[in-house]
Amino acid sequence: MGKTRLEAFSDGVIAIIITIMVLELKVPEGATLQALQPIAPVFFSYLLSFIFIGIYWNNHHHLMHLVKHISAGIMWMNLNLLFWLSLVPFATAWLGQNHFQPFPVALYAVLLDLCGVAYTFLQVAIEKCHKDETRLTDVMKQQRGKGIASLLLYTASIPFAYVNTLISGLLFITVAIMWFIPDKKIEKLVSNEH
Amino acid sequence: MGKTRLEAFSDGVIAIIITIMVLELKVPEGATLQALQPIAPVFFSYLLSFIFIGIYWNNHHHLMHLVKHISAGIMWMNLNLLFWLSLVPFATAWLGQNHFQPFPVALYAVLLDLCGVAYTFLQVAIEKCHKDETRLTDVMKQQRGKGIASLLLYTASIPFAYVNTLISGLLFITVAIMWFIPDKKIEKLVSNEH
Amino acid sequence: MGKTRLEAFSDGVIAIIITIMVLELKVPEGATLQALQPIAPVFFSYLLSFIFIGIYWNNHHHLMHLVKHISAGIMWMNLNLLFWLSLVPFATAWLGQNHFQPFPVALYAVLLDLCGVAYTFLQVAIEKCHKDETRLTDVMKQQRGKGIASLLLYTASIPFAYVNTLISGLLFITVAIMWFIPDKKIEKLVSNEH
Amino acid sequence: MGKTRLEAFSDGVIAIIITIMVLELKVPEGATLQALQPIAPVFFSYLLSFIFIGIYWNNHHHLMHLVKHISAGIMWMNLNLLFWLSLVPFATAWLGQNHFQPFPVALYAVLLDLCGVAYTFLQVAIEKCHKDETRLTDVMKQQRGKGIASLLLYTASIPFAYVNTLISGLLFITVAIMWFIPDKKIEKLVSNEH
Repeated sequence: MGKTRLEAFSDGVIAIIITIMVLELKVPEGATLQALQPIAPVFFSYLLSFIFIGIYWNNHHHLMHLVKHISAGIMWMNLNLLFWLSLVPFATAWLGQNHFQPFPVALYAVLLDLCGVAYTFLQVAIEKCHKDETRLTDVMKQQRGKGIASLLLYTASIPFAYVNTLISGLLFITVAIMWFIPDKKIEKLVSNEH
Repeated sequence: MGKTRLEAFSDGVIAIIITIMVLELKVPEGATLQALQPIAPVFFSYLLSFIFIGIYWNNHHHLMHLVKHISAGIMWMNLNLLFWLSLVPFATAWLGQNHFQPFPVALYAVLLDLCGVAYTFLQVAIEKCHKDETRLTDVMKQQRGKGIASLLLYTASIPFAYVNTLISGLLFITVAIMWFIPDKKIEKLVSNEH
Repeated sequence: MGKTRLEAFSDGVIAIIITIMVLELKVPEGATLQALQPIAPVFFSYLLSFIFIGIYWNNHHHLMHLVKHISAGIMWMNLNLLFWLSLVPFATAWLGQNHFQPFPVALYAVLLDLCGVAYTFLQVAIEKCHKDETRLTDVMKQQRGKGIASLLLYTASIPFAYVNTLISGLLFITVAIMWFIPDKKIEKLVSNEH
Repeated sequence: MGKTRLEAFSDGVIAIIITIMVLELKVPEGATLQALQPIAPVFFSYLLSFIFIGIYWNNHHHLMHLVKHISAGIMWMNLNLLFWLSLVPFATAWLGQNHFQPFPVALYAVLLDLCGVAYTFLQVAIEKCHKDETRLTDVMKQQRGKGIASLLLYTASIPFAYVNTLISGLLFITVAIMWFIPDKKIEKLVSNEH
């Protein structure tokens, strides 16, 4: 079915996005621990983005799991989401190489906001042609709470980047932790189907 | 079946093509908005190519969905299409780094033409061994109209690149918009099957 | 089943091998046709390797199609084949950047030989646990003829690289053309199964 | 099912990890055998890491094959494993470019240890929700022996890197050989299911 290929294609793109970021970890010249030190911020920005892309893959997985049919709108909105996600490696590299300076941190937050909006658009496109799929709409309602909280925290981290980038960083980590907490309701909704 | 792997392999190659283009967005030195400005044309060329590759994936998806069996001809014509698509990242990078100068714009249009021709060859190879699949031939007839219009617009944008590259750019955008308009007939043909 | 993942993993690796070669097409500085000229040998080496990797994918596809169960031997021999194939992008880039000089041409031929030997090892591993699958052994017998001819032509092109690299090039093209000719017997064997 | 996508996504990421390492084999300037010599250590570090990633893919394949349902814990622990594996290309490049100096060798061993620990965490997460799947727990018990031996050998190779990196290298090769020996019991357990 169409769904299989949409999932496979998204998996491919997300797998590449999550992996090419590691190419930014340029091999240092020396062979000592000191030689590794300048890479530390690049490493942490990679870790952060790996987590965020991982969260998106996770949510995409739960969302698509219950989708029954694919419309042109779903296909375009999925590509739209993949486009914004594909910019994460660039924003991550900029963040890491500039040691978390205000503007790159703010831009990173803006990009995460845009990814979140694109995900919402995808949900809307799915809703349009799955009005009677109560389990799917329940999963989406469930995701919405964390989704809105994430958008608010990302948006808050934009001005905070100019106060202290550490606060923005803490807000990012808060979002990540929030998504780590397993959502029993979604798991039940997804597994009930079997 | 053979079809599954042909789809999976094509998905893999197209996913990589669409994603490695982002590697051309080289991280700028500074951490300001000004530092980002030189990347703007690279960004727009990426956006353009992301859309075109997305359209091809979309069409490939609809086309393959109704294919029943795979011949040697289909396999080679599919590889042929993937070859020309794989050159898009190069043409895109050249376009972006030269700020949309006439020759790179013309070459980009030529490449899109070649991709379009390769897609037509794939359709012909599929037609050869699916003569009795009326739904499939209907989908192809439906795609043909937009396909021919695209080829004409790409070809027109070649000479226009030497008049004003903006005109070529507008022609590219016209093609993209044309494909965004959902084709109700194809959607019906594809979903009818279920 | 195990086979599905072995195919999916091989498809992924081969898709990446075939696509990352295009990264060697470095964007030239100028925006003229002359600026593209130095890339011509890189382009032709890419085209050549795209065809060879495409042939391997094609053959791998036909071979795996009839495989019923996966042994540890098949898994390791498949990884072994992927390893040698993964060196093709390096050999290709060296070939292109040195304008087809004798030693890189000879090394390229040696690598293609090694890939061919690895493919034969994979066939042997498959044969070991599919002794009663007559259709599969027929496909392998059928592939063997072209396989041996390819190995002989690759080996011949090694000394010829020091006489005239053009001869080696023609031998490579001969191998490619040989594989393009569709093998009616294999197609029949593969499709019979359905 | 969820399992299919988890496998597909893991396959994608592992395929990219195993393949992008070849990008470190930078094309040398000359076209002679001597020009290739400086790449030799990079080649050997690539070969080593290709084998280790191959072993992980192999084990992941056997492990996931018998998994029945996916929990949030399994998804996060799988992403965790992929994260550590994704650092292998960096550690490999550092190893190769520094001609196997003590510190990069020790760091490589630490990373392999971390990958091994992450794999154990994934097994624990799987065990938690598959308590009644005796065949799966048998496979895991079977993998545990080699797993613990690997961790011990990696850990031993850390101090040995400061005595003689050759000893560490031999320990790495010992681990690889140990995994090459086909595990009849696992094969039986996995194939029994059909």
